[in-house]
Formats: sequence, structure tokens, C-alpha cells
Amino acid sequence: MIDEIQKHILEEVADLHSVPEGAYNIRANGQMAGRNTTANIDIVSKTDKSGIDIRIKPGTKHESVHIPVVLSASGLKEVVYNDFYIGEDCDVVIVAGCGIHNCGNQDSQHDGVHRFFVGKNAKVKYVEKHYGEGDGDGKRILNPVTEAYMEEGSTMEMEMVQIKGVDSTNRMTTAELASGAKLVVRERLLTHGDQHAVSGYTVTLNGDDASADVVSRSVAKDHSYQKFDSRIVGNAKCTGHTECDAIIMGDAKILAIPQLEANNIDAALIHEAAIGKIAGEQIIKLMTLGLTEEEAEAQIVNGFLK
Amino acid sequence: MIDEIQKHILEEVADLHSVPEGAYNIRANGQMAGRNTTANIDIVSKTDKSGIDIRIKPGTKHESVHIPVVLSASGLKEVVYNDFYIGEDCDVVIVAGCGIHNCGNQDSQHDGVHRFFVGKNAKVKYVEKHYGEGDGDGKRILNPVTEAYMEEGSTMEMEMVQIKGVDSTNRMTTAELASGAKLVVRERLLTHGDQHAVSGYTVTLNGDDASADVVSRSVAKDHSYQKFDSRIVGNAKCTGHTECDAIIMGDAKILAIPQLEANNIDAALIHEAAIGKIAGEQIIKLMTLGLTEEEAEAQIVNGFLK
Repeated sequence: MIDEIQKHILEEVADLHSVPEGAYNIRANGQMAGRNTTANIDIVSKTDKSGIDIRIKPGTKHESVHIPVVLSASGLKEVVYNDFYIGEDCDVVIVAGCGIHNCGNQDSQHDGVHRFFVGKNAKVKYVEKHYGEGDGDGKRILNPVTEAYMEEGSTMEMEMVQIKGVDSTNRMTTAELASGAKLVVRERLLTHGDQHAVSGYTVTLNGDDASADVVSRSVAKDHSYQKFDSRIVGNAKCTGHTECDAIIMGDAKILAIPQLEANNIDAALIHEAAIGKIAGEQIIKLMTLGLTEEEAEAQIVNGFLK
Repeated sequence: MIDEIQKHILEEVADLHSVPEGAYNIRANGQMAGRNTTANIDIVSKTDKSGIDIRIKPGTKHESVHIPVVLSASGLKEVVYNDFYIGEDCDVVIVAGCGIHNCGNQDSQHDGVHRFFVGKNAKVKYVEKHYGEGDGDGKRILNPVTEAYMEEGSTMEMEMVQIKGVDSTNRMTTAELASGAKLVVRERLLTHGDQHAVSGYTVTLNGDDASADVVSRSVAKDHSYQKFDSRIVGNAKCTGHTECDAIIMGDAKILAIPQLEANNIDAALIHEAAIGKIAGEQIIKLMTLGLTEEEAEAQIVNGFLK
């Protein structure tokens, strides 16, 4: 059911070279292309709309769920709703990724709405990779919505990566944290050509000792445009940190709008942002080692987004 | 023409104990209460609306202009337009300040719109202090608008201070910088009671080697609310830095929304923000030296806003 193009995309977005271990649900061109459940992880298709419910039993440890999506037909537009119910005391890895191969003239678009209900003291590592390829005129559009509802003492680590080839993206992530919950976000974003990327985070710290650390690193090349919009709201005794480091290249434009909102005397919130180009000395140093200017730039960009 | 209350307010907003040296224009309760011009600095009342034109001859050095405003009548609302034309190669100090003494039941409001046309290579130090007092139910409202148009190689240093007693303020500052121009802003803001303060900066760096450094330090006490909204736009080879440090006390709320907008590969922009309460250790340290908790807090706040 999976062809060569789709296999290649699966490698890019989910590091999958074969059928994954553990639970998985592979979606290709709007259809289910494979599913596996385990004793602890159930996956059920929604009946009222497109999407799946993933239910992970309390106490499930060291298991993973892969839910990659592949679009290789030009002109396909879909909205998919996936809900994750993660029981108390779980320790799981969830890998979601979407790759679009568009060789046609019509726009292809996948909008994934992911909701995470993270039970008490559960630990979740969530990896989301977005990738586009194909030389058609049709655009590759990805608008992910991610919502996390984190109960007492839960931990979630989000790794959000847009590698390359996505023409337009509007990423919205919200998280609400109860007491002692901890959210770590690492975003890496590369835009090139005429690409347009908007990334917004709203993290609300509602419980005592909740903490959030949201760090975005991005590179904007050519004529691309990036907007980073991060909001941390402290309603309790909590700590929040958000950081946005961006490298600007060519004729790109970058707008960073971090917001800190302290509604409680015990909320400690910090923000840092820096936008700049690659330092000339760094390039010259690598060129004296034998690299061309392009190679030097590529190496610096790769290191920055690592 | 100046009574005792007005004298006291002049001391607070302009450090004036007597008639100032150099050029001045004192405005009291909507009327001119004193004016002095010099060979190099002319002050003329506008004929089409309320306000004055201040014209400083090219090359004027080490002269000052004081334009304090005093409102001691309850219920007075005024909008005043003051335009400063600062000639090339000047080096001058401009002190503007507004104090409101409101013992009545009606709101008193002064909205000052200040425009600065800063000539090539001119240096301007601008000090603006806002202060309110009086125990009436009427509010003390100050909405200053500051616009700076800075020509090549000019320098402007703005010291913007709201000491206390202003119930509501909406401060909007914009600056446009040509090549080699340099803007330094130091804002200090204290809010208490149910006060409401919004402070917005938009600094546009249009010329090569233009630079801006905007630093705000604020303390929000009691039930007060502060919003800091700072936007630096880099359209050329330029450097911009904005920083917002805020101390939150009591049931205050603080919102910081800095924006960095890089539209040029050679724009280097940095932002930092931190909101937090006074560290407990700092208070305990001062209390072991014999201060009460309130005295310790007051000393820390004063030091922070120095």
C-alpha cells in the first residue's frame, strides 16, 4: 500500500525505514495505510470526523506510538483530528510527522489538530516533523494545531521540526499546566524560497510549581518570512522561560513577538530573543579550512538547527 | 502666578526650585505662567492649536529648555502640541514634565504630544517626568505621545520617568532613525493602587549604522496593571536592543510584549525581558541589618528604579 515516494517521505518525517515498533497508524493520501495496536495502546478511528483516538493505559512505560501522514497526491486537502489520552504514570514517546510530495499544480494541504490529555505524573515525549518536496507549482501547506492539557506532575517534551520544503505553515500550540507540570518545547524551523511560516505558542501556567521552557531556533533564507509569536501566562507560583534565536539570510524577514504575562506575584517569567546574520568571522574561519562560502554557511546552519 | 502647590509640583517634575536657567515655558492650569527665550532658543505659541514651537538654532551647545506643566485645578482636560526643531550640530538638554495635583472629584487629564525634529549630528538629552498627587476622587491621567525624527548622525537620549500618583497613563513613543543616528531610552515606571499604565515604543531603524537601546524598568504594586509594548524594526544595517525588567508586588499584573522585526540581513536585534518578585533573600538580608520588611522592600524598589 506504500509506494517508493511514500517510503522516502516516511523516512524524512518519522525516521522510519520499516514498519515501526509498537503502536502505529500510517495515513497516506487520506486513507489508513497501516495500523497496529498493543496491549496498552489502542487506536480507534473517529466516527464523527476524520482522525483517530489514541488511548494509552495508565502506567504504560517505554512504549511508543507513531502516526505519520503522507500526502503524495496533488490537490489533496484534509483536516484530521487526533486525540491522545495518556493515562496516569505513563512514560511514552509519540512520533507524529507529515510529509507532502507535490509534483502537481494544485495545492496540497494537511491540517492536523492534535489534542493531548496528559494524566497525572505521566511523561510524554512528542516529536513532530514536517517536510515537503516535489517540483510542481502546487503549494505544500501544513497548519498543525497542538493542544496539551497537562495534569498535576505531568511532563511533556515537544520537539517540533520543520525541516524544509513546506511553502506555508501556520503552527498554533497551546498548553495548560496544572500544579507541578513541566513543559519543554524545542522548535527548529528552516524556511527558504518564498516560504511563509507563522509559529504561535500560548502556554498557561495555572498551578503552583508549573514550569515551561519554550525555545525556538530558526533560519530564514532567500525571500522567506517567519513570525514567532510566543506567549507565557503565569497565574500561579511558576517559572516560564521563552527564547527565540533566529538567523536571517538573503532577503528574508523575521518578526518575533514574545509575550510575558504575570498575573501572580510568584510568577517568574523570562524572555530572550535575538535575530542576526551569521557572523562573517565564522564563515571565514571555515573557509580557511577549505570550505566554499556556501558550504561554510550550510555547516553553520546545520549546527545551529541541531 | 505660581502658588505653593504648583511650586511643589515643579520641584517633583522638573527639579525646579526657582526659575530655571536658559529657555523655559511654564504652563499652569492651561495658561502660560512664564516664558523665557534666549539668543539661540526661541519659543512661540502655536496659533492654530494649543501648544508651542521651540526652535533651537544650529550649533547651539550646552543650553537647556524647560517646559514643565502643572495642573492643580480639578476637572481640567487638555491636549497640548509641542514641536521641537533642533538644528544641526546642537547639543542641548530638554526637560519636560507634568504634575497633576487633584484634590477634587473630577478627572484631570493632560495629553502632551511632543514632536522632535533632530537635525544632522545634533545631540539631545530629553527628560520627561510625570507625577500625580492629591487625595480627591478625581483621576490623574497623563497620555504623552512622543515622536522623534532623527537625521543622520544625530543622538537622542530619553529619560522617561513616572514617579508616582498617576492613575492612568497611555504612553506612546515612536522614533525614526536615519543613518548613524543613535537612540537611547531609559524608562522608569512605578504603579500602585489601582493604577493602569500602558507604555509603547516603536523604533524604526532606517539607515545604516543606526542603533537603538530601549530599557524599561518598572515596579507594579498593589492592584496595579502595566503593559509594556516595545517594537524595534530593522530596515538597514543596524543594531537594536530592548530590555524590560519588571518587579511584581501584591496583586499586580504585568504584560510585556516586545517585538523584533528584522527586514534586512544586516539588522541585529536583541530582546530581553524578565518579570519576577523581589527575592526573599534580599529582604531578609536587609532585615538583619535592622530594617522592617516594608523598609527593606522600599529600599530595593528605590535602588531598582534609580
